[in-house]
Amino acid sequence: MDHKVETKWTGQMSFDSVVDGHTITMDANPQVGGTNKGPTPKPMLLSSLSGCTGMDIASLLKKMRVEVDDFTIEATGKLTEEHPKHYEKIHLVYHFSGKELDTEKIEKAVRLSQERYCGVSHMLGQVAKLTYEIAYQQELILD
Amino acid sequence: MDHKVETKWTGQMSFDSVVDGHTITMDANPQVGGTNKGPTPKPMLLSSLSGCTGMDIASLLKKMRVEVDDFTIEATGKLTEEHPKHYEKIHLVYHFSGKELDTEKIEKAVRLSQERYCGVSHMLGQVAKLTYEIAYQQELILD
Repeated sequence: MDHKVETKWTGQMSFDSVVDGHTITMDANPQVGGTNKGPTPKPMLLSSLSGCTGMDIASLLKKMRVEVDDFTIEATGKLTEEHPKHYEKIHLVYHFSGKELDTEKIEKAVRLSQERYCGVSHMLGQVAKLTYEIAYQQELILD
Repeated sequence: MDHKVETKWTGQMSFDSVVDGHTITMDANPQVGGTNKGPTPKPMLLSSLSGCTGMDIASLLKKMRVEVDDFTIEATGKLTEEHPKHYEKIHLVYHFSGKELDTEKIEKAVRLSQERYCGVSHMLGQVAKLTYEIAYQQELILD
């Protein structure tokens, strides 16, 4: 199966990229001639990574009947100094919050995504050192 | 230098990712439980790639004083059949249109981006077979 994306220059450093019928406007910072109309391209790799693994986990937790109130992924990419500047390290922190969280099942879902399902983790994990951790904020109901 | 992106689950298969202060909403297709509110994560790699190389070229052509009327990048990613599904091949077509295009300088700009500057090409080119071509549509002014 093929994915196809068309990206059109809209002047200066701006580009409109059409993905699945949705348009993402990308732009550069004013220091490099952009007008900051949208995200810069490189950190969008981290969005793609977070969305990919996030959707795996949302889907797995639903199947496992695990409920969480909130679920946020923080992704940090450490850039090389030299050109072409790329991520040499990527770290993900999966934050879950809720009442009496089933941490065992949550960990299983995260691991399944990282080790089996998430194609973006698979790709970026081959070129950057990809690490992750899980953080919980939970209300415990004590008897 | 670090890039940091925060991505929040907004229910079902939807996620809001904040990049440089800009929010990208990602979602899945209805076949897998999504509501198609935004792009799916994986093809956003192709947007990131196109934006990264596109901005290099926009910047290089400006420095080279080369003018083009339109500039569009088509990116096609061929997915593997097996999990984790990832791109095994990526092909870029750079389309330029304009009057009496300086194709030599345009080719130089594309090559410099692909070989030296574009960090996203550098990363994805290590995990997928990355190829590219240049297509011109130009009005020639004949004497």
